[in-house]
Amino acid sequence: MSADLVIRNAIVVTCDGDGGVIGDGGVVVEKGRIVRVAGSDDLEQAAQEARTVIDGRGHILMPGLINAHCHAADSLFRGLVEDLPLEPWLQKVWTAEGAILNPQTSYLGSVLGCAELLLSGVTSVMDMFWYPEETVRAARKVGMRVATGGIFFDGPGVTGGDLDARIAAAEDFFAGFGDADDVFAATMPHGAYTVGPENLKIARAIADRHGGLFSTHAAETRAEQDDITGRYGSSVIRHLDHLGLLDERTTLAHCVHVDEEEIGILARSGATVSHNPMSNLKLASGIAPVPDMLAAGVNVALGTDGAISGNDLDMWMALRMAATLHKGATQRADAVSTAQALAMATTAGARALGAGDRLGSLAAGKHADMILIDVRRPHAVPLFDPVTHLVYSTAKSDVRHVFVGGEQVVRDGALTRHSIDETLDEVARLAPRIAATIA
Amino acid sequence: MSADLVIRNAIVVTCDGDGGVIGDGGVVVEKGRIVRVAGSDDLEQAAQEARTVIDGRGHILMPGLINAHCHAADSLFRGLVEDLPLEPWLQKVWTAEGAILNPQTSYLGSVLGCAELLLSGVTSVMDMFWYPEETVRAARKVGMRVATGGIFFDGPGVTGGDLDARIAAAEDFFAGFGDADDVFAATMPHGAYTVGPENLKIARAIADRHGGLFSTHAAETRAEQDDITGRYGSSVIRHLDHLGLLDERTTLAHCVHVDEEEIGILARSGATVSHNPMSNLKLASGIAPVPDMLAAGVNVALGTDGAISGNDLDMWMALRMAATLHKGATQRADAVSTAQALAMATTAGARALGAGDRLGSLAAGKHADMILIDVRRPHAVPLFDPVTHLVYSTAKSDVRHVFVGGEQVVRDGALTRHSIDETLDEVARLAPRIAATIA
Ligand SMILES: [Zn+2]
Ligand SMILES: [Zn+2]
Repeated sequence: MSADLVIRNAIVVTCDGDGGVIGDGGVVVEKGRIVRVAGSDDLEQAAQEARTVIDGRGHILMPGLINAHCHAADSLFRGLVEDLPLEPWLQKVWTAEGAILNPQTSYLGSVLGCAELLLSGVTSVMDMFWYPEETVRAARKVGMRVATGGIFFDGPGVTGGDLDARIAAAEDFFAGFGDADDVFAATMPHGAYTVGPENLKIARAIADRHGGLFSTHAAETRAEQDDITGRYGSSVIRHLDHLGLLDERTTLAHCVHVDEEEIGILARSGATVSHNPMSNLKLASGIAPVPDMLAAGVNVALGTDGAISGNDLDMWMALRMAATLHKGATQRADAVSTAQALAMATTAGARALGAGDRLGSLAAGKHADMILIDVRRPHAVPLFDPVTHLVYSTAKSDVRHVFVGGEQVVRDGALTRHSIDETLDEVARLAPRIAATIA
Repeated sequence: MSADLVIRNAIVVTCDGDGGVIGDGGVVVEKGRIVRVAGSDDLEQAAQEARTVIDGRGHILMPGLINAHCHAADSLFRGLVEDLPLEPWLQKVWTAEGAILNPQTSYLGSVLGCAELLLSGVTSVMDMFWYPEETVRAARKVGMRVATGGIFFDGPGVTGGDLDARIAAAEDFFAGFGDADDVFAATMPHGAYTVGPENLKIARAIADRHGGLFSTHAAETRAEQDDITGRYGSSVIRHLDHLGLLDERTTLAHCVHVDEEEIGILARSGATVSHNPMSNLKLASGIAPVPDMLAAGVNVALGTDGAISGNDLDMWMALRMAATLHKGATQRADAVSTAQALAMATTAGARALGAGDRLGSLAAGKHADMILIDVRRPHAVPLFDPVTHLVYSTAKSDVRHVFVGGEQVVRDGALTRHSIDETLDEVARLAPRIAATIA
């Protein structure tokens, strides 16, 4: 059988196990899956017979990045509320969201966010937002995978509706997308401070019944810890643990404020922690004890959070910070290694999606979600070690080509399925209305 | 008289005083200087008569960034030595430098580094390196300004030579470049741990005699503090102060480990602290108390340090980190404001160069060192506040056009004076020899 796609002559960083660099190599893709990863010489025959051959010369080929915590549609509110700590900041954000968001604007914001993500080489994102079916529609519009699903929130939130409505929406989402290859269906309660214990358990039960994922914000700020401890007599992670919410299908965003025992609970549970360094710094939440979590065996993945806190969705910035911030904060140069940082942005994210067997590395049998990174740049020369280069020097603008399931969805730095100008214009037209919400 | 250049229809961020944003405006340039900053309507006449008119639509126009601490030529060693703390890291770096560096390779590395800087919108850099006349040659090759000068180092270092040779080289530099408009001549002892008190004073005296600048590394690591305290009985900043080295012509790189009293000494002296967040994090040096320094009135400028610690020369990354890192580290959302961060990268850098009257903002009489930043990008929409956008969302790849002294030195993201490909090829050819030095 002839291949659909062969990429050759690239520096291949497989992210598969320890190391996994091929100085001159590529991949063979059939029906959306990688069937072979090999040196370029061994790919000559396949290239002759392939439908499409791409010359990866001057590029690093690696798996697409996986963003393990995002709110893509919040890009509509980028830069609207600045220089406040989380709690007063959230009040303003919620006012703006409440006034602006409906299915149409959520779709618009999600296209904007997903476009930014995909252009920067993120091929899968775990996204929490109102109207998750619009997030799926947006992800499909640009051509990326998304983990999302029904929001739980005890107040009226953006959509209004009571518990029954939340349950129905969550069930509908599983009915609509539970079997899709490009969607990882989940339930997503906002956090333990906005969703009571019973409703957290209901959200979890729905995910369990469908074999889906479960994700929530947890232990983001000191104030949240105080709030939960005051209400329930135990810290956030212990509270979630007591409720039986932590296992390998759980992703907790942030975990900035966790003690040693809580890190042990996280490690034993198999839950993923999504580390969002830029959001945590900008909102003054603090610095998550990532080296301790890694040492304890916690699956630490990496996220950008929304552009409303970030103010962008730059996973390369997140990767660089994951690798450097903890060295500085602990004054230990080995606090997080380059290999650990790169794993956070790839294999750990795949595991968070329950898709370690399908995503996160270049290996036979996995989805052909891959990116080509230009290394003919002044900040990429000399290049002694491609892993080091990816972690410490690569910028989002170095991503030239992106493939999801073997389909080229970014070519020469532009989306292939959608004209971004349309979206930029539409958002610019909406901007004055957004600004007016908190004026 | 007709203008040489008019830029119109841009969002203008002047960086002049408080705020200074013109929603739709531009500048008039004559003989390398800005003669007027105004709204676009008021520039119509000037545009009709100008030799060159540039439409800034969809762009932010702002002053070029000033990088207040760099070793551009160290880009040759980018990524060579990783994940070590400063002291053992320096030993390996010095081995590699000693084996590779001569005037030719220093020039090559400086062109590489200066190209990266200028392409990202840095129009002036304070650079410390061996063979500073080669740094000047490289800066002139691409078309940017540089503050540099004779290195002092008590050991043989890269160049060999005794104290007399260092003095002669420093004097030669002032003789050659002391009067140049594009060079800010300085003496640059490496640090108090590598240069003894008498030689620090000699270096200072040469700078003073010529009205030049003086810059050194200071208080970068805990180990350095212990070393200096052990040798001289006082901490680094006090030691430098006792020697009479601190005044408004002094720039100290790092100042990570400084106590409250030392911050007071720095503030009273008028010296500049160059904050290098990425280098400090990656080398596990720590987190500088920037909010305290700002509160005390220290002139805090911003640098990238060399790409050997960085691993790039991305001032936008430095800017973002200056604005966010200290919020996270102190858990105070107002630790560093966007205006303060932007000032670090512009006006504070100008003051470090002793050129506050000529650089750092868009104002009549100043050098026309300016950049145009594309805001038609998915991470730039919506754009509620251009200052916020510059600090929290702008990436180096958004810089499209760069002007130094009114000359366009970057057009559409490419150097106008030099073909970067030549340099990239030459560095790639040298890379195996560099790798072999520490193999
Ligand atoms: Zn979030
Ligand atoms: Zn330095």
